[in-house]
Amino acid sequence: MKEIFIKQRFEVPFRYNVYFKRDLFEESNDFLRKLLESEGASRLAVVIDGGLAQAQPDLRSRIDRYFKGSFTAACIEVQGGEAVKNSWEGVEAVLKLVNEQHIDRHSYVIAIGGGAVLDMAGFAAAIAHRGVRHIRIPTTVLSQNDSGVGVKNGINYFGKKNFIGTFAPPNVVINDVTFLETLNDRDWRSGISEAIKVSLLKDPDFFEWIEENVHALNARNADVMEELIYRCAELHVEHISGQGDPFESGSSRPLDFGHWAAHKLEHVTDYTVRHGEAVAMGIALDVCYAGEIGMLSQALTDRIVRLISSLGFAVYHTDLGDENGMNPEIMHGLVEFQEHLGGVLTITLIEDVGKAVDVHEVDHDAYDRSIKKLKNRS
Amino acid sequence: MKEIFIKQRFEVPFRYNVYFKRDLFEESNDFLRKLLESEGASRLAVVIDGGLAQAQPDLRSRIDRYFKGSFTAACIEVQGGEAVKNSWEGVEAVLKLVNEQHIDRHSYVIAIGGGAVLDMAGFAAAIAHRGVRHIRIPTTVLSQNDSGVGVKNGINYFGKKNFIGTFAPPNVVINDVTFLETLNDRDWRSGISEAIKVSLLKDPDFFEWIEENVHALNARNADVMEELIYRCAELHVEHISGQGDPFESGSSRPLDFGHWAAHKLEHVTDYTVRHGEAVAMGIALDVCYAGEIGMLSQALTDRIVRLISSLGFAVYHTDLGDENGMNPEIMHGLVEFQEHLGGVLTITLIEDVGKAVDVHEVDHDAYDRSIKKLKNRS
Repeated sequence: MKEIFIKQRFEVPFRYNVYFKRDLFEESNDFLRKLLESEGASRLAVVIDGGLAQAQPDLRSRIDRYFKGSFTAACIEVQGGEAVKNSWEGVEAVLKLVNEQHIDRHSYVIAIGGGAVLDMAGFAAAIAHRGVRHIRIPTTVLSQNDSGVGVKNGINYFGKKNFIGTFAPPNVVINDVTFLETLNDRDWRSGISEAIKVSLLKDPDFFEWIEENVHALNARNADVMEELIYRCAELHVEHISGQGDPFESGSSRPLDFGHWAAHKLEHVTDYTVRHGEAVAMGIALDVCYAGEIGMLSQALTDRIVRLISSLGFAVYHTDLGDENGMNPEIMHGLVEFQEHLGGVLTITLIEDVGKAVDVHEVDHDAYDRSIKKLKNRS
Repeated sequence: MKEIFIKQRFEVPFRYNVYFKRDLFEESNDFLRKLLESEGASRLAVVIDGGLAQAQPDLRSRIDRYFKGSFTAACIEVQGGEAVKNSWEGVEAVLKLVNEQHIDRHSYVIAIGGGAVLDMAGFAAAIAHRGVRHIRIPTTVLSQNDSGVGVKNGINYFGKKNFIGTFAPPNVVINDVTFLETLNDRDWRSGISEAIKVSLLKDPDFFEWIEENVHALNARNADVMEELIYRCAELHVEHISGQGDPFESGSSRPLDFGHWAAHKLEHVTDYTVRHGEAVAMGIALDVCYAGEIGMLSQALTDRIVRLISSLGFAVYHTDLGDENGMNPEIMHGLVEFQEHLGGVLTITLIEDVGKAVDVHEVDHDAYDRSIKKLKNRS
């Protein structure tokens, strides 16, 4: 039996649609009911973000009314925000609901809320019965244009972000811009940084479109925001399938542009800086750095940092460093980033709008100078 | 924005080999070291089945010696048998090892043991960092020819078998028949029932080969057992990729032949009946039933039941029922089986060796008669 072995090779297809609908749980809007009926669903387990439920006190009863008579739906509320990812409690609550509601592989877990709740509920849905059907209804800008349309889920463990989780595409994503109405200004703004990021990496037209729509976005124009979300989500969705490595088995993840410093800054500030705010600063930093090392023109560097500022984002935080240069704790983020990816260091920069470049080593002095420049700008 | 949506479609390729090697952890056998070196691995987290470690007291030191100087390997022992799947403790221990050992997506979790330990460790490996590389080294007949070469993992939760888990193919499987030497006779025999099962479903030649090798198997001939495992594992591996639905999104699972009653019998007997023993009885029952309803000839029915008996398996257990017919609790297994699959009832029977047939309704009287016949045989 020496030198012989059995070879296993197969491919698994994944398919899902991201719909854009308004007033999803209005009784007269039968989109979701029809979608569920067409899939033969009967039982639903609905997980609602507690923060959203507080901001929209009639949501729970609207959902109950919406499904009544058509489906056996059981709802629970879970804590909103990152806290829901810091313990097993939320996952346990969703698993319990799946068990009690007899959700099988042809019923649905529906999660409604911000990115953290979707990450947690998506993880529970992915491991219950080795994966039950799952609908994501993201209710923040950040989750509608970025995390909610992707393929990842997870919770924090041992104090480490997303230490446990899976790659598990949802069956359906539904973005309803009317959920954004009750967001505060910080959360409304936060998600825009991911749109800036993908425009810089992939789409000069989209970058210019954002520049042209700064005032409408600052004035909380829902139509404009919906278009921003659509274009950003579309680029994100294309990126996942277009790279040939949707479950990230390789080392390069170009959509992490601006993210190494952002992750670290969130941690160092104890998450008082929101993810989108940290990403805005991380982009400003890496853009400035690309300018410093002569990869990006000074005019374009200024233009990008100006756009970020004009949307109301800070481009500098004292915890990033000071006139002496970068905070060593932030700089250490590069090492951790490399360890997380488990290969050689790979940082994505841009040499023009729409032109991403991977680099594998960095000039620490140029990062120190970038910090000083951003401090002086702010 | 009405009626437009973003479409996501991609395919993920999965590949792994099942190797057959002997004396894997002999220092002179560099197969595993070379394999790990060729993949650029440096850090290893090794999970050892406590039952195996007890039966082979020098295993732990042999493993330490084997990796010393070549890899940074950390080992833990976990409880063997189904108990390790009944709490979160084992998963927590593996996650802790992954964290402390800084296992990233290019290092390896290596699990060595029976099916339960592989299920638990495989689950932990699948959720740590959204999936770290994983090598399975099954050490029982059942895990070498069936569960260990497949794509599932999981633990029990809310008292329900495999309530949480994932579909996550291993990176490599290595079957070493020398691990079987210390199995007791019940465990040596148990795994053979899965070989009978796949031969009945798919391979008449293999069925005849098993008939011809009854004495060698009963005499614990390692060469013959290795060939049985190879042929069974190969059919299993081909089944997973050949059906076009490796992650079981559909309702039919023909490899569950004989399993609906087996699962229920294990539960009813509080797992004093081993899985392989229960499967042997489940096959005998469904074969008898196929004979009763005229699907299978009486001669073939007798021949199959005779083979099962000749290998030392019981074909009847008092908890299956008595002269009044089937135990209602066992009969209820049909309902649970349907619920687990979440669609219409689908039971696989055979109309000849190698000819599987799916049926969607059953004749309870014929099951009652089958129980009586098996009771009289025993």
